[in-house]
Amino acid sequence: MKSMETAAQVLTKTVNGVAVDDMAQTVDAIKSNPAIAQFKFRIRNEWAGGSQNTSTVNGFHGATQEQSRRKPFVLEADEPPVLLGQDKAANPVEHLLHALASCLTTSIVYHAAARGIHIEEIESTLEGDLDLHGFLELDPRVRNGYQAVRVKFKIKADVPDDQLHEICGLGTGHSPVYDSLVKGVPVSVTAERL
Amino acid sequence: MKSMETAAQVLTKTVNGVAVDDMAQTVDAIKSNPAIAQFKFRIRNEWAGGSQNTSTVNGFHGATQEQSRRKPFVLEADEPPVLLGQDKAANPVEHLLHALASCLTTSIVYHAAARGIHIEEIESTLEGDLDLHGFLELDPRVRNGYQAVRVKFKIKADVPDDQLHEICGLGTGHSPVYDSLVKGVPVSVTAERL
Repeated sequence: MKSMETAAQVLTKTVNGVAVDDMAQTVDAIKSNPAIAQFKFRIRNEWAGGSQNTSTVNGFHGATQEQSRRKPFVLEADEPPVLLGQDKAANPVEHLLHALASCLTTSIVYHAAARGIHIEEIESTLEGDLDLHGFLELDPRVRNGYQAVRVKFKIKADVPDDQLHEICGLGTGHSPVYDSLVKGVPVSVTAERL
Repeated sequence: MKSMETAAQVLTKTVNGVAVDDMAQTVDAIKSNPAIAQFKFRIRNEWAGGSQNTSTVNGFHGATQEQSRRKPFVLEADEPPVLLGQDKAANPVEHLLHALASCLTTSIVYHAAARGIHIEEIESTLEGDLDLHGFLELDPRVRNGYQAVRVKFKIKADVPDDQLHEICGLGTGHSPVYDSLVKGVPVSVTAERL
């Protein structure tokens, strides 16, 4: 992969597959017009019976305008049989781990690119601890959510060991999902009749 | 949908597509062996270049044993062009909204079922505010993550208005992802050489 990236870099000035010139231009554009930095991401979810539901992802607001996709992305959710589902898709707390892994990885890749650090491979395994005493109201001392999440990265890059941990810190230091999950986010929930 | 559920209910004692007898049996089983409630969910993520990466979801630990799927679920992530990606998949912060919507919905459905409350339809729209001044290190006062998330449910159920808000509260009161996101989760991140 490294040789491909080096070839691509010559043509389009990319590092790690990221167009670093475009990233620098975005930063300059935001400095002259801060409104460019304001994004609103959206999904629409529909229940499909039991433990199954589907989200549709399409438009968002960003860079001062409404943005849309050529076609919407469809994301499914279900539960495994032991949690009373049909096992047609990953479950919500597994989707949360995917959001975290993907955001940390992209944050590492983008910010390493901005610093000229070439990365060859990144893998991660994530594990989260959940105690159903919370969800099932069996013990008020047990929280409903994850008690802890562990992320283990394996990174291949031509850097010394101490820089490997620095690269990992580019993820935790910038990732929107990591920040949201570790520090918490205000979430308002309202309901009306359909 | 309601008539189908009523027919299914006669055969297998389901409410809202949830096997409520199995849910009650799970509660009883946990009361006699608390270890049954301990779950560990896992994913494995692999970078595919630039803003693209893929998670594989398969095994987890729950109900005192290792559990696996018939086949793994594959979850993709990318970024739209305005965020320097190829737009092949929803982005990480959109996946986070899917995790939240799906978990709130399933929590509503399960806990309404346990109370014998029949729900006909649930839809939700979610929106989250993200200011790139955080991710791009342009303003240290701006957080990297979502500043706020708004969830709007529309629910069709044969209940009075005040119970509609009660039903919505079954989601916020039990959802593992909602609890994780609102209160925050300790996340450890380590890196080693690949």
